[in-house]
This record gives sequence, structure tokens and C-alpha cells, in this order.
Amino acid sequence: MNTTDLTTPALLVDADALEANIADMAAALPGPRLRPHVKAHKSTALAARQAAASHPGFTCATIREVEGMAAAGLGEDLLLANEVLDARRLGALDARVTVAIDSPQTLAAAVAGGVREVLVDVNVGLPRCGIAPSVAGALADRARAAGLTVRGVMGYEGHLMMLDDVAERARLTEECMARLLAAHADVGGDIVSGGGTGTYALNTWVTEVQAGSYALMDTAYTAAGLPFRQALSVLATVVSVTAPSGEMPGWAVADVGLKALGMDHGNPTVPGAQVWFCSDEHLTFAPGEPLVVGDRIRVLPAHVDPTVAMHERMHVVRGEHVLDTWSVDLRGW
Amino acid sequence: MNTTDLTTPALLVDADALEANIADMAAALPGPRLRPHVKAHKSTALAARQAAASHPGFTCATIREVEGMAAAGLGEDLLLANEVLDARRLGALDARVTVAIDSPQTLAAAVAGGVREVLVDVNVGLPRCGIAPSVAGALADRARAAGLTVRGVMGYEGHLMMLDDVAERARLTEECMARLLAAHADVGGDIVSGGGTGTYALNTWVTEVQAGSYALMDTAYTAAGLPFRQALSVLATVVSVTAPSGEMPGWAVADVGLKALGMDHGNPTVPGAQVWFCSDEHLTFAPGEPLVVGDRIRVLPAHVDPTVAMHERMHVVRGEHVLDTWSVDLRGW
Repeated sequence: MNTTDLTTPALLVDADALEANIADMAAALPGPRLRPHVKAHKSTALAARQAAASHPGFTCATIREVEGMAAAGLGEDLLLANEVLDARRLGALDARVTVAIDSPQTLAAAVAGGVREVLVDVNVGLPRCGIAPSVAGALADRARAAGLTVRGVMGYEGHLMMLDDVAERARLTEECMARLLAAHADVGGDIVSGGGTGTYALNTWVTEVQAGSYALMDTAYTAAGLPFRQALSVLATVVSVTAPSGEMPGWAVADVGLKALGMDHGNPTVPGAQVWFCSDEHLTFAPGEPLVVGDRIRVLPAHVDPTVAMHERMHVVRGEHVLDTWSVDLRGW
Repeated sequence: MNTTDLTTPALLVDADALEANIADMAAALPGPRLRPHVKAHKSTALAARQAAASHPGFTCATIREVEGMAAAGLGEDLLLANEVLDARRLGALDARVTVAIDSPQTLAAAVAGGVREVLVDVNVGLPRCGIAPSVAGALADRARAAGLTVRGVMGYEGHLMMLDDVAERARLTEECMARLLAAHADVGGDIVSGGGTGTYALNTWVTEVQAGSYALMDTAYTAAGLPFRQALSVLATVVSVTAPSGEMPGWAVADVGLKALGMDHGNPTVPGAQVWFCSDEHLTFAPGEPLVVGDRIRVLPAHVDPTVAMHERMHVVRGEHVLDTWSVDLRGW
């Protein structure tokens, strides 16, 4: 099959870039040093490639992701790096499931849901989930008293991922990880989990890195100076072209918009063109070279995670040849 | 069923607000004066309510929407108000399908796909699709020569929908519609289609208005001073609470984020609270009143259309009672 046979908009994954990204990361963080985050691609087919590249465990952001990974036979060691108040669907799985807790309520939910293993989620500076380091040990004691196994700690320095200055990113990562290690001294366990694509090479304090975006990449992470290649694009068809008129420059419109592109990091990029704006199903842009109606273009999303979650499937391509089609089967909640 | 039984995040539709919005719009634009746009809700169950409120025809933005409406028995008069280069799926439907054309290529695609009726899409000022008014008649002639029935014109003044100054919105709408009527004089046909929720009461020149957002509404349209009620919210669970510490104010985190909220119009609103930021699966906010882990909140999206498209279903509620659950069955392409 060729890309011309695809209905647009269509998510494309460059096979060679993906394989290079997976191989490069596995060389840097082999085996359990990386716990790939599936939220960035939501595809068990892609996760299977990461497992084949030596990583036995995975990070998930939703219960649906954990369920899907277990159903796909990838349940050797699944971490739900997020707090939940109803863990019954997790407890029912035939898989090794560890869930993050940061409060007595989320601890109680793990117990009530039949989950047996937890990590204590520690706030390392990002104002989101996570308990204060000083009281992490007390929560771990309480979890053990309730019969849970506490495997260690996790803490995500998410606010540092996109910092332009790499030296500053490294310095602040060390500060954040000092908080996590202080909590770990009180909590115990084998695992210190944290980090992401933006700090995978800087965060030498954790026992495992939770990177996800590295596999597919986006323009925001590319701008952050990471060595991974842009593997993800959205194929779109030019459906309308307006010639220049008077002082108004010409523009083209492609059939990809707000329902096919995560917009929280801003507009997507069309290489060689100037993007004007997105509508629900349209992208208006000034092309760098003349386009005609019916031409196909590749649009680079600004943020990979929410973009992928809008699509039912991704097509693995080499040039214009479609090698495989993978279901984005971990969507929803 | 009660909302407490729902897995979060969950899309909620306030039954009374929805019914009031549909009734108020049907009173203002009865029967074929409104051609409701399904892109704003992507649900055939909701469209059936609009059909029951006297509107026989519908506007769609994608081929999938047209297919889904036809399959649901709502195919009496479906307009795909968008250009397509492959119309074969449209031509195969057992429904009345009219498609927009604005170029020889999209005209040829309609013929090749077996679609028999078209509207000429006219650029009225928004830099997106649409042919220049001066040459719309020539395209119509060419369409008729190719055997197509030209039902009239359409033109969308989308750039005016959110203008704060209503008088200015009205004045510019008149300018845009003068262009559309000039094109219509050359094109012929019974239909002059245009408008949206933001101009439904101002655009007195079209024969039918393509409004969609009025049914569910969002915070952006509410800010534009429209009389419709906010019917849509996203139910979320508070999964983490951090108390104030030193100079840092306290915050709460709910389980709704970038994968459950259209972000192109900015952050969502939590009534009485201050929203800080969204992550993939989290909303960090400073609550207006103390919250505890496990509390449920209702989050108001900034943009209804892309928000709905992220969810598999919407729950119709009255207070905390779940009356019905509708599939968002028109997603994808």
C-alpha cells in the first residue's frame, strides 16, 4: 500500500526514525533503566517494539492504558504513574501492576481495589501530584501497615523538560532529585523512578527513566535539542488553494485541524511553509512552493501525546510505502 | 445511575440546558432556516433531537460525519460543507448528499465519486476554503455542464463569530454576505448557506444558518454574549491536594487534561477556582473552596468542538442523575 491510498488526515510514523530512536534510547538506557511511557504513543504495537528493545516494564498514565498493555501480553511490570480513587479495574488484571499513591485516600483506593504494590509519588517541584518529601516515609509506613508492598518512590521533574539551557536543566534536575532521594531514604524500596525525554541523559539519580516522547518526537522536543528524530507526522490533502490578490498573499488549505492535532503547544509546522491558523478540520498556510489542490503534505505536530490520542491508527511508512498499520488502542479512560 | 458511578474524565450534558438551547434556536430559526452543524457534537443521538425540533437537514465537516448521519437514518438532506478530493464514499450512500466545491478539482471529485448535488463554496473574507465571488458563476456553469445539480452557494464568516462588539459583528457580517449574494446572483439555485452560532441572529441574508455550537456551548461562545446556556462540562475527580506551604499557595489536581479538553482556545474554566495549567491527564488549579481527594468537579471547556471529539460518549444528566448515555459516534475521518 502507498500513502496515496490513505484517507486523510492520517498519522504517519517514519519506520527508520522510530527504530533509530528506540535503538538509541535502548543503548543509552538499556533494559530496566528505561520504563517507556506509553502515554506518548498509546499503541501496544509500538510498545512491543520497545519491549523487544530490552525494556521489560512500562509506565502508564491511565487505567485504560494499563488494561490494554496487560491484554496485549505486555504486563510483566506495569506502573500507573498517576493517582486513582477507584483501583478495582487494576486489581482485577492478570499482570504485575504498581500504582502511585500520594495520600491516605489513594492508598486506601489501592487496598480496596486489590492492588498489592505501590510507589510513593513525591513532589519534586512541579505543582501537580506528589506528597511533600518530608512526609513520604510516613505514607510508606502506613501503606506497609495496610499490607501493601512499597517498591520505592517516583517524582517527575516535568517543569524542566523544555528548558532551553541544558546546563540549567541539569542543575535544576539535580535539585529535584535531591528531594526525591531524601524521600527515598525514608520510604525504602528498590525503585527511584522519574525523568522524561527532556532529562533522560541528565537524570543520573533515578534507577529508571519514564521517557515516552523520544520514540515519536514532536517539534517542541526537537527544539529542546534532543538527539532523537522526528518520526511522527500527519498526512493531509490540500483541499483548496487561493492565489495572491492585490496585497493579500496566496494561501492553501489542508484537511487537518484542531481535531487531528494537539494544540496546547501551539500551531503545527509545515516544513518550508508559514502556518497561519487551524480550524476544526482545516489548516490554513502560506506554502513555500506552489501547491495544487490534491497535493499531499506532511504536518509536524507541536505536541505528540495529545495528537496521537486523537487518531484511531498510525501508519508505519518508509517514504511513501505503508509497511504496517498499528491501532492506537490505548485511547480513552 | 448517578454521576458518582461514572469513570472520570466524563463528558456531561445538562439535559435542561440542551433542550432549552435546541428549543430557543428552533424558535428563532425554525425548520430548514437552521441546518445544524454536527461537527460541534458528533453525536447522532443529539442530532436526532435537533431533527425532532423541526430541522430536516444537517451540515457536516467530514465524510465520516455524513456516513454516520446517513446510517442513523438522518440522511434526508446532508450538506458536507467542506471540500473533498475523493467523494466515492459519499456517492455510495443511501442519502441525499450535497458537497461543497470551490475548484475544478473538487468539482471533478464530486462527479467521479457519484455525488449529484453541489453548493459552490464562496470566500466571504475568512482565509480558508471558497472561490472568489467573481468567478463562482463560472464554476457553477462548469458543474452544470458536467451533469451536477448546483443547489446554490455557501460562505462562512467564521472570522466574525467571536467579535466582542455586536454592532461591528453585524456590520461585517453584512459585508461578507454582500459578497455571497453577489456570487449567488451568478450561481443561481435555492440555497444561500452560511452563518454560525455567533451570527445566527445577525445573518438575515442567508436562507439557512449552519450553527452547531449553540446546542452544547463553551466558555468562548458564552463570553461572546450569546443567549444559549452552557450545557457541556467535563466531570473530573480530584486526585491530589497540596496544602499551602510558606509563600506557595495550595493547589488541587483533577484527572482531566490535554487529552480530554480542546486547548486551542486556551485553558478550561473551573467555576470559583483559578486554573493554573493542564498536563496530559491532569488539571492543576487553585480551588476557591477547600477540596479533598476524591471530590468531583465540573470543568468547562474553552472550545466545544475539539473537546467532544476526544470522548467516546457523553452522559446526559439532570443534576447528578444520569438520564442517558449517547455515543460520540461521528468521530474520526
